[in-house]
Amino acid sequence: MKVDLLDTLRHQNPIVFNISNFVTVQDVANGLNALGASPIMSEEVAEAEEMVGLSSAVCLNLGAFTQTQVEQIRKVGEVANQQHKPLVIDPVAVGAVAYRKMIANNLLTHFHPDVIRGNAGEIAALADVDWQAKGIDAGEGTGDLVAIAQACAQKLKCVVILSGPTDVITDGTRVVKVMNGTPLFQVHVGSGDMLSSIVAAFCAVEADYFEAAQTACLVFAAIGERVAQATPNLGAGSFSVQLMDGLQLTTTAQINAIAAYQ
Amino acid sequence: MKVDLLDTLRHQNPIVFNISNFVTVQDVANGLNALGASPIMSEEVAEAEEMVGLSSAVCLNLGAFTQTQVEQIRKVGEVANQQHKPLVIDPVAVGAVAYRKMIANNLLTHFHPDVIRGNAGEIAALADVDWQAKGIDAGEGTGDLVAIAQACAQKLKCVVILSGPTDVITDGTRVVKVMNGTPLFQVHVGSGDMLSSIVAAFCAVEADYFEAAQTACLVFAAIGERVAQATPNLGAGSFSVQLMDGLQLTTTAQINAIAAYQ
Amino acid sequence: MKVDLLDTLRHQNPIVFNISNFVTVQDVANGLNALGASPIMSEEVAEAEEMVGLSSAVCLNLGAFTQTQVEQIRKVGEVANQQHKPLVIDPVAVGAVAYRKMIANNLLTHFHPDVIRGNAGEIAALADVDWQAKGIDAGEGTGDLVAIAQACAQKLKCVVILSGPTDVITDGTRVVKVMNGTPLFQVHVGSGDMLSSIVAAFCAVEADYFEAAQTACLVFAAIGERVAQATPNLGAGSFSVQLMDGLQLTTTAQINAIAAYQ
Repeated sequence: MKVDLLDTLRHQNPIVFNISNFVTVQDVANGLNALGASPIMSEEVAEAEEMVGLSSAVCLNLGAFTQTQVEQIRKVGEVANQQHKPLVIDPVAVGAVAYRKMIANNLLTHFHPDVIRGNAGEIAALADVDWQAKGIDAGEGTGDLVAIAQACAQKLKCVVILSGPTDVITDGTRVVKVMNGTPLFQVHVGSGDMLSSIVAAFCAVEADYFEAAQTACLVFAAIGERVAQATPNLGAGSFSVQLMDGLQLTTTAQINAIAAYQ
Repeated sequence: MKVDLLDTLRHQNPIVFNISNFVTVQDVANGLNALGASPIMSEEVAEAEEMVGLSSAVCLNLGAFTQTQVEQIRKVGEVANQQHKPLVIDPVAVGAVAYRKMIANNLLTHFHPDVIRGNAGEIAALADVDWQAKGIDAGEGTGDLVAIAQACAQKLKCVVILSGPTDVITDGTRVVKVMNGTPLFQVHVGSGDMLSSIVAAFCAVEADYFEAAQTACLVFAAIGERVAQATPNLGAGSFSVQLMDGLQLTTTAQINAIAAYQ
Repeated sequence: MKVDLLDTLRHQNPIVFNISNFVTVQDVANGLNALGASPIMSEEVAEAEEMVGLSSAVCLNLGAFTQTQVEQIRKVGEVANQQHKPLVIDPVAVGAVAYRKMIANNLLTHFHPDVIRGNAGEIAALADVDWQAKGIDAGEGTGDLVAIAQACAQKLKCVVILSGPTDVITDGTRVVKVMNGTPLFQVHVGSGDMLSSIVAAFCAVEADYFEAAQTACLVFAAIGERVAQATPNLGAGSFSVQLMDGLQLTTTAQINAIAAYQ
């Protein structure tokens, strides 16, 4: 686990190009900015090549799903592959909505992601493992989360992050679990989207995406945990503000002090 | 007034499908989440049937008004009716913009809302009562708010919420007024949109929509009032954060303690 | 410098029509509202004439850039000119993305802005001055910021605001510099977009746009500076909340007390 990557990220200030979920786009941009990366966004396919060219990593959030946006997502994914820029995918709600799973599976025939970040229901859907998903949230099944994540990673030949109370990160063989976090992440709508873009930011500064992915998870989870523990009975609104502060102000030493992973 | 519905809502955690105003979509999602419901959003008409099928209630915000979105709104409204899911409409700015009134009136020939939530100018416009509206805000006319709300409810055969410093809730005959609230709601852009979606969340757990609507108004207004009174000279930014905390943490007992309605 | 314009603005509560960047639209709406203006937004070209007609000023943010939105922006700009409503342009990322510069230059053949607000890279691009820009942020070149701003203002025959640690405001001849501010503006994604819309709000209440522009810059920068100084080691999330509070609660006397311009 290379927590020092956070210092590298803050030093290099990499540009991360996001095709974002329209629900959470501002939070994602502010989160990347607070952490030390530079977010750029676009909805226009005509500038796809140029935006990818400017960027050190790309994050495609599949919660932005009009047919026009699907065209843009496909083009951006293809260009990211061509330009050898790290590509992170967030398959929002593919576990709950058959239409989204169909679109996601089709997109995955056009480009190859380096990292996929989703909850249990989403990762299971991509791995074609049976799982109950409810809305955009993970269901409460009994499957083996590690086995699901590994199945997805092996099938799609990429790093997979199955995030939840415990994050499971795997390249299909090796597995790391991050146990930091707080239930408040689930009350804040943009948490998953933000993590996906932060994973892209770490991939911009670390060519080993398995290392980048696990570090991103630990950094994000530990910062959330510190914020939640600092104030008793913290509410969802205050958490989202203080999470943003934490992304900016938390040091690697503070993260290392509470890091819980194996 | 069934304030205990808030506990039911928190226990059932209903999925509410929102076609949202692009300005306030994140706040609406976070507000529903904080209160105890599960928001889902979509901009793609192709997944309309599936998204409605997943949901226990639907809220259509008519502030999201490209022609493509109008098609989606019409389809979602029709499907909600077909699937007998409670349907809440927020007719943003129909009192100020003739184009929006025309579109809204056309949409209302395609589906039947169970509840309409708007300010005085918006409800008057739908009722075809003369009223001065300014921008998206209610004007300062002299009409009888109760009469306007009843006219709209009778014309459209649904429950109407005319919200403002006093909320008027009516099914066309019966009338309840909620006197809780704070002027800070008017400084926070997403307040009305958030209330509309919260009304939908209550309709998901109470089949009597007149009861659901009045309870939603009381819960939202009372939580805002408590938040505003807790801090002297509270600013608009802090209010929006603390409102989110309040939606999550306020108990039915705390709401009952200050409830003001008749 | 007419700081009292802030009181005029709060008294008149002008309606400002914004074609907004989808990333920051909610922050912009809340910021205008907090300051004392009335924001309205639209994505539909069919209501362009009516929305401009309702408004006292128009702000076009060129970070919202699908081809459909370009059509809408062009129409709204043309209508603003026809109706003699003050028109403010925010040319997001034209310094970094050639596609955006091409589109912006084309749009500027269809309508005439009264004020342009951008960072050094963006203003240099519109002035056709060489400058290094990175992402959406200004690069760190060595050009003379005043000369760049003047060149842009003379070329496009309008008031130009080149904003940064020092804001340069010029009508091509006269120059005012505003030295207030805080580095936290750069950590908060919506700062520039918010300033542009606030400039429009001041243009709604002051027909001398050079005066309106410089006052808007001073008011915004001074409020940010006061907020940042009030709390040691303020984080990005808390800054955005307290900036909103400051926009609402800061008095002209408090601004005058720290105003730094020449």
